[in-house]
Amino acid sequence: MEKVTNRGSVACEGGVAAPTGFMCAGVSAGIKRTGRKDVALLVGETAFPAAAVFTMNSMAAAPIQVSREHIASGLIRAVVVNSGNANACTGPEGEEDARAMAEVCARALDCRPEEVIVASTGVIGVPLPMDAVLSGIEDAAASLASTSGAAQDAAEAIMTTDTFAKQVAAFVEVGGTRYHVGGMAKGSGMIMPNMATMLAFVTTDAPLSSTACDAALRSAVDLTFNRISVDSDTSTNDMCLLMASGAAGGEVIEPGTDSFARVSACVVGVCEELAKMIVRDGEGATKFVTVTVRHAASVADAECAARSIANSPLVKTALFGGDANWGRVVAAVGKSGAKVDPRLIAVDFAGITVCKDGTGFLFDEAVAAAALALPDVEILVDLGLGDGEATVWTCDLSYEYVRINGDYRT
Amino acid sequence: MEKVTNRGSVACEGGVAAPTGFMCAGVSAGIKRTGRKDVALLVGETAFPAAAVFTMNSMAAAPIQVSREHIASGLIRAVVVNSGNANACTGPEGEEDARAMAEVCARALDCRPEEVIVASTGVIGVPLPMDAVLSGIEDAAASLASTSGAAQDAAEAIMTTDTFAKQVAAFVEVGGTRYHVGGMAKGSGMIMPNMATMLAFVTTDAPLSSTACDAALRSAVDLTFNRISVDSDTSTNDMCLLMASGAAGGEVIEPGTDSFARVSACVVGVCEELAKMIVRDGEGATKFVTVTVRHAASVADAECAARSIANSPLVKTALFGGDANWGRVVAAVGKSGAKVDPRLIAVDFAGITVCKDGTGFLFDEAVAAAALALPDVEILVDLGLGDGEATVWTCDLSYEYVRINGDYRT
Repeated sequence: MEKVTNRGSVACEGGVAAPTGFMCAGVSAGIKRTGRKDVALLVGETAFPAAAVFTMNSMAAAPIQVSREHIASGLIRAVVVNSGNANACTGPEGEEDARAMAEVCARALDCRPEEVIVASTGVIGVPLPMDAVLSGIEDAAASLASTSGAAQDAAEAIMTTDTFAKQVAAFVEVGGTRYHVGGMAKGSGMIMPNMATMLAFVTTDAPLSSTACDAALRSAVDLTFNRISVDSDTSTNDMCLLMASGAAGGEVIEPGTDSFARVSACVVGVCEELAKMIVRDGEGATKFVTVTVRHAASVADAECAARSIANSPLVKTALFGGDANWGRVVAAVGKSGAKVDPRLIAVDFAGITVCKDGTGFLFDEAVAAAALALPDVEILVDLGLGDGEATVWTCDLSYEYVRINGDYRT
Repeated sequence: MEKVTNRGSVACEGGVAAPTGFMCAGVSAGIKRTGRKDVALLVGETAFPAAAVFTMNSMAAAPIQVSREHIASGLIRAVVVNSGNANACTGPEGEEDARAMAEVCARALDCRPEEVIVASTGVIGVPLPMDAVLSGIEDAAASLASTSGAAQDAAEAIMTTDTFAKQVAAFVEVGGTRYHVGGMAKGSGMIMPNMATMLAFVTTDAPLSSTACDAALRSAVDLTFNRISVDSDTSTNDMCLLMASGAAGGEVIEPGTDSFARVSACVVGVCEELAKMIVRDGEGATKFVTVTVRHAASVADAECAARSIANSPLVKTALFGGDANWGRVVAAVGKSGAKVDPRLIAVDFAGITVCKDGTGFLFDEAVAAAALALPDVEILVDLGLGDGEATVWTCDLSYEYVRINGDYRT
């Protein structure tokens, strides 16, 4: 089932294990009361060039602090992740626990703890059950494989309120060599990533240098994970990581080259698919919503207006109700701070023009209702001012969001 | 039923008609399909010193644009308000309609149109039914009175999704003279006022100059209406107005005097009560929540952290669920941009310490659950850094909010 994506890369199977040089595992360690998988391991054959971006939330969790130190060298051997507990707001003990996770992982893999990235996701403020976590890491290390099944296990083991595992893989051919990019992600609520996403791990067998990893990752995150919002809440544990094994062969790829552009576009494509999966699995989401703002005075203005629409509870509840309530869209643009000329704004819902020249445009309510009943909805706002354009992906706000978050902790 | 408020003023009856020199009316003009009252008039005996603040939303509605011009002189005779239709995003015709409202009102009162403030609230993007609006204004002008009943009618006529009419009155004695302040407001959804509130009209019989009106209003709005949030959406039609008849007698009151401080405090008290009423009537609200941030590095930081908590959908749904989920509070502080030392933060829910030194503090979940089941909840965050303190009032996010806004327009 190969399809050519809009970025010139070809989709394939295998998730993070699709690129050569990586093994993974996902096991149940008993951190989650449900007994579901909760410890994942992603391991390179040796320490590979890597880059990561982390949450900008100033209450960043213990694993984020440890991983920030470890990524500094630009070389990473393994990623260890637990779900069911965020190890956030856990004080100095939390940091010791995060370091212990890296140490146990390093011992099992015979590498240095500084070569291990640590990630946690789940409830905030509860100490990690370390016996379970550490034996889970040893179990996972004993069951590493480079199969699609192992990639699926790992993708499942990083889930919290997610309702499906999120994996993508694709390849590009550059000068006769096939470079793969694979990724897995988790996230459903507390989603408005800021310079990072909930958790996303991307692998490639292209021979990217550490600098190239960093450049490719930052531009991909900016265009994908930083363009989604479920509920405008930025997590304490966001992290996105790219590791490059180079196992596909060829010269080392540095930024500024044609090879870099091709592989980088493939990374963007994989990240975009993962980001969209997170929105589709947004807590309580019944609709996947693409918000595009065009002809803004600048790209920054377009992005700021699109975000304001995507985060407006009134827009999101109207979408849940299937209501082409363009007045709320226009009000959200108006409060965003983006430059606006009220006489020029136009709004389309699902391809139907509902507002033009800043005022209502006659439309068939029945046709609009039918279009808004579909699971995918597009909102297009034209500000009529300049060349700025940006797209943000979001979901609606439903009863189910309130139910899920009214009793998540207890 | 007199009670001494915390600002040295005494509560009384009569709403906007409590101060001498004002008449009002509220009638049903047929703008609302329900047949409920939808045109209100508030009129001074002559043109009085007045001040107003308006929404910062750049899609400001037609009546806002007209009223901004009319307030420039600092002298206002009357306020005309319709509910059921916001006259926002209605193009040049909308502005003509707003001007026509002022003209018909001026003709009925024998004053100049520039002495009339126009306000509208309701659905966005639909032309006003002008026949109904204009005959409603004439009906209202014919039934003006300075009674409590008339004040109640006016307060009812400005409601949209509000479930109760919002009125307050109080007086202070300054040098043997009793100065009254009365107010009415409306608002329930699309509430995160920015330099103004939904609609609030405050009257006084104190002899405030236009400058004094402006100073008193701006400081009151900053401390009250600008400190509430229902759903983080800033309306296109927000407006808050203060009119001073001077009918109680005495020297003209200018800013910087003791009399000004006393009357101004009374204005703050009236505005605070109205602002809290708006939050209590927040769409779908089951809880009134006071968020206070203390010991921030600055007042601006305290306000920014308190707003971030008050606007977090995850905090609001946890409150709806009665869950002492302090992790979400701390995450909201962390994303706010306020300066934070993660090792110093403390959180109390309803007087119960749940987080200390940045980590969980053992508390009795049953006691917390009982406290959070009450309709009034306090969240106190201590950042342990400086002297900055701010309070913001908000409500929870319930199924009912989603229901109300999933089918408001259609």
